[in-house]
Amino acid sequence: MKLAIIGLGKMGGNMARRLLKNGIEVVGFDFNQDAVNQISQTNGMIPASSVADAVSKLSGEPKKIVWIMLPSGEITENQIKDLVPLLDKGDIIIDGGNSNYKHSQRRGAWLAEQGIDFIDCGTSGGVWGLENGYCLMYGGTKEAADTIEPIAKALTHEDRGWAHVGPIGSGHFTKMIHNGIEYGMMQAFAEGLDLLKGKEEFNLDLAQITELWRHGSVVRSWLLDLTAEALAHDQELSSIAPYVADSGEGRWTVVEAVDQGVAAPVLTVALQARFRSQDSKGYSYKLLSLMRNAFGGHAVKTK
Amino acid sequence: MKLAIIGLGKMGGNMARRLLKNGIEVVGFDFNQDAVNQISQTNGMIPASSVADAVSKLSGEPKKIVWIMLPSGEITENQIKDLVPLLDKGDIIIDGGNSNYKHSQRRGAWLAEQGIDFIDCGTSGGVWGLENGYCLMYGGTKEAADTIEPIAKALTHEDRGWAHVGPIGSGHFTKMIHNGIEYGMMQAFAEGLDLLKGKEEFNLDLAQITELWRHGSVVRSWLLDLTAEALAHDQELSSIAPYVADSGEGRWTVVEAVDQGVAAPVLTVALQARFRSQDSKGYSYKLLSLMRNAFGGHAVKTK
Amino acid sequence: MKLAIIGLGKMGGNMARRLLKNGIEVVGFDFNQDAVNQISQTNGMIPASSVADAVSKLSGEPKKIVWIMLPSGEITENQIKDLVPLLDKGDIIIDGGNSNYKHSQRRGAWLAEQGIDFIDCGTSGGVWGLENGYCLMYGGTKEAADTIEPIAKALTHEDRGWAHVGPIGSGHFTKMIHNGIEYGMMQAFAEGLDLLKGKEEFNLDLAQITELWRHGSVVRSWLLDLTAEALAHDQELSSIAPYVADSGEGRWTVVEAVDQGVAAPVLTVALQARFRSQDSKGYSYKLLSLMRNAFGGHAVKTK
Amino acid sequence: MKLAIIGLGKMGGNMARRLLKNGIEVVGFDFNQDAVNQISQTNGMIPASSVADAVSKLSGEPKKIVWIMLPSGEITENQIKDLVPLLDKGDIIIDGGNSNYKHSQRRGAWLAEQGIDFIDCGTSGGVWGLENGYCLMYGGTKEAADTIEPIAKALTHEDRGWAHVGPIGSGHFTKMIHNGIEYGMMQAFAEGLDLLKGKEEFNLDLAQITELWRHGSVVRSWLLDLTAEALAHDQELSSIAPYVADSGEGRWTVVEAVDQGVAAPVLTVALQARFRSQDSKGYSYKLLSLMRNAFGGHAVKTK
Repeated sequence: MKLAIIGLGKMGGNMARRLLKNGIEVVGFDFNQDAVNQISQTNGMIPASSVADAVSKLSGEPKKIVWIMLPSGEITENQIKDLVPLLDKGDIIIDGGNSNYKHSQRRGAWLAEQGIDFIDCGTSGGVWGLENGYCLMYGGTKEAADTIEPIAKALTHEDRGWAHVGPIGSGHFTKMIHNGIEYGMMQAFAEGLDLLKGKEEFNLDLAQITELWRHGSVVRSWLLDLTAEALAHDQELSSIAPYVADSGEGRWTVVEAVDQGVAAPVLTVALQARFRSQDSKGYSYKLLSLMRNAFGGHAVKTK
Repeated sequence: MKLAIIGLGKMGGNMARRLLKNGIEVVGFDFNQDAVNQISQTNGMIPASSVADAVSKLSGEPKKIVWIMLPSGEITENQIKDLVPLLDKGDIIIDGGNSNYKHSQRRGAWLAEQGIDFIDCGTSGGVWGLENGYCLMYGGTKEAADTIEPIAKALTHEDRGWAHVGPIGSGHFTKMIHNGIEYGMMQAFAEGLDLLKGKEEFNLDLAQITELWRHGSVVRSWLLDLTAEALAHDQELSSIAPYVADSGEGRWTVVEAVDQGVAAPVLTVALQARFRSQDSKGYSYKLLSLMRNAFGGHAVKTK
Repeated sequence: MKLAIIGLGKMGGNMARRLLKNGIEVVGFDFNQDAVNQISQTNGMIPASSVADAVSKLSGEPKKIVWIMLPSGEITENQIKDLVPLLDKGDIIIDGGNSNYKHSQRRGAWLAEQGIDFIDCGTSGGVWGLENGYCLMYGGTKEAADTIEPIAKALTHEDRGWAHVGPIGSGHFTKMIHNGIEYGMMQAFAEGLDLLKGKEEFNLDLAQITELWRHGSVVRSWLLDLTAEALAHDQELSSIAPYVADSGEGRWTVVEAVDQGVAAPVLTVALQARFRSQDSKGYSYKLLSLMRNAFGGHAVKTK
Repeated sequence: MKLAIIGLGKMGGNMARRLLKNGIEVVGFDFNQDAVNQISQTNGMIPASSVADAVSKLSGEPKKIVWIMLPSGEITENQIKDLVPLLDKGDIIIDGGNSNYKHSQRRGAWLAEQGIDFIDCGTSGGVWGLENGYCLMYGGTKEAADTIEPIAKALTHEDRGWAHVGPIGSGHFTKMIHNGIEYGMMQAFAEGLDLLKGKEEFNLDLAQITELWRHGSVVRSWLLDLTAEALAHDQELSSIAPYVADSGEGRWTVVEAVDQGVAAPVLTVALQARFRSQDSKGYSYKLLSLMRNAFGGHAVKTK
């Protein structure tokens, strides 16, 4: 089995390594040639000097399979367009990044018109995937899904943690919801630990408590494992800024809930907590302070 | 009609003025003697040099009526206790402050044992009450409520805006819910205006829009009137700190919802938005940032 | 001044009446000819038998002005397209309905290419607009805005309650946010009144309390006026189903908050409360019940 | 090591079995004598016919240790009071139930006056604790905590999953927050799965997806393990009522957040989602429907 991977960053690079370790041939390309060289030399990846070169090094395969692992949006869009002239009917493009599922549906339909098969693959596991195996959920035709099965098996743990979940779009949809849930779980832990920390009279040791909960409690989870380990090093977090980034999938989940007309308050307020952390102006708070002053004569705190 | 008012601050002082203007005799006391002197000289209030003096100046009234207008909590609690020995059976204490209704129920029961009637009166209207009339919602026995009716009429606008809503406790309960609603309305406006401001491409004039909405729109309201007027002076709010205080009633409303087992998400998140504005540490955000780093290798923003 | 109105439903019909009453000539068309006849006979509207007929009856005007008051989405989209061949360069189409502002931006740009001016006008006031005047917030070029000013004045109360808020799109944007705030205010009242009702020991009279709050309280507002009036007739609401519809603007406001990355928790949970009311299946609740059973052996309530 | 357990229900009974299996002597009492007999005969527990009998069967121990595992509230309160006359100075009462931590603080202070040591032990693990080991977080004096350590070790998995977290009250406090987080996590999963289910065009298999996520994904957790297993049997859930019970700790967590002035939106809306599921009247929805009708003439759905 042989495939090309376009994009060898934090995710793509480790995926190439895991595939190579598990007997899959990988042709790799990235604009960062250092990444290409490093994985080639250490892990035996076939290096490519361009996308066209990568595709050409798949010639002779029954179907050429190109896995793109790039930032979602325009970069992924353009890469897919650029690939088409290099491929033959029946070849397969897999988008393993965090694309919006509606874009994947549109791309899949367009690629089908060109005779190219498309797989949208949600990929979870973060930086731990190399060691623990990734979690893969993908959409596409049955034929394409069957074709890439050996790749899925090589990327996951003991042949579990992968599935062909439905038609094109359903892979990224499932991953989007996964990330929405992730936001909710993270926020639940953050709020709970904040309340533990805030109970000053008990002077609780958050490293002790998170470690304790890992064994036998209802909230035991991988996120808790990582949190306990991090808090064991430092629980004051004095050097960390109170700022949390968010990425597309948390946002799209909330929009999906609006589209479906389904209440998803936890997923929503979890996202909005991140928005709050990013808001350095606090205009809404200023307005509230202004109103309190206007009706009640309450003092306004000034800067 | 004659009563004593204990506490002549922002609320109590203006209430005394309004009562005097409307033909009610007022004996007034405050630890701040300047407040006492000022209202006596300007508005004809009967000054008192102590609580005992104030009560003594009600002698001869069929029932002595003492209206206390003090910060809720211990100060109100102690004042009620101190009043009892000065009063006779059948006299009336009115707590016009923002006491927790459960405390009012307890105090009312205890006062009943001493033969003193108790009225818990929720008082809305802020600094505008002097001019516009207050809004009064009170709990107590029918007899006590009937007795204080002339006072209620003098404090309110054209004899409307007051009611005996139920037994002891129900006045402060109704006021608590009123304030809970107020939090929700304020937050609704703050969020909406924040989104108007955030739409930079339209460069909207928030003073124009809030003024416009006052006429014929569904959101027209007194809060909007005040907001429009304030924004007409300044809509950048650059000198105001993004900090919003909260007082007991917003909090108690949320606890009441928990006690009743009733979902009140708007009232709750409106309160919690204020908590956010008060949180200078952002520990929960730091935890989220830590977790993102732990599972995904995402960079942590440092201070 | 003369204009055509396409769409004479609950909103458009009353707007025609108000314009006619205030000296504006109105040509009216609706597929429901009864509506056309009724307004023509009673209020002196010039009846039209088709859109083309309506436009033709504007001939001779310096600029033909067509106000469409139709359901948003495809119906409005198609009407705008159909109007273009009937109009001349410099004529004006006003969309007074609840269109998504992004659609208005797109339509405005396309109409500009055809030489037609476009005004997107958010219209608030509901069924009370005929009597009280509407609230109008509109976007467009200065020239078009100036042209329609006499119409705006005739539709609003004492020449207030209208404004040209910015470029094309800004009118519907402002109306969208207005409705978002409206959702939040309504939900705040609904939650507060639910808690009053839930406090059975006080046996509160919600008609009395809402009436009371109208005078001097901080929450006084037009929504409260209407609520008090409705509750005066019936506060048990036993014949009303616990189901609340929602329309596009509440949803778009939440999506806008996501797009801006701005926390708008009150506007969001207010919308989601309606989603809950529409959800007859309760699948998420079933899942929770299932989980509680799975980890804790808690009994599952069965149907 | 020997202790008495009062209360042999779903939790207490299994805890007795696990202790016995791990070499701790247990005297057991329950008003349900069948439970007593069953565990005595099958697992070698020393049966007691009354609380007094249970305590008497601890005579000769250096310190008598009584673990009560009863419903929180009055039943636990009364049991603690009834135990005191049966114990000697230096003996230990452990409350392993879900008591409010403030009650535990009060009880601990009162017991200290009687010379009795008190341990408040939060106990997680549900019906799986017998097999997997429980998770124990307890508060108390260092001396008492040291004394019960062998019991903690016998109840937990491989000597992990237990800790003395702080003074009296801190055990139940930590468990309360644990349960708050649990509510948030459960709701996050419920919302996400609801959205997967709602995406009808993809016809997703929730059993497949939850099973898949167990391997390598960021949301892997024990709750997910149990959910996947349950959905493997049935994912339509047609026989389950959309009703979710809640218990004290979720509620107390929200009240704690209010007391601390800390925003905990996820924990709060997770609790309120359960309240919604319990609300068969929907009065707030009816009010919203009424208001929409009042201002906009929108039709009200009737029953």
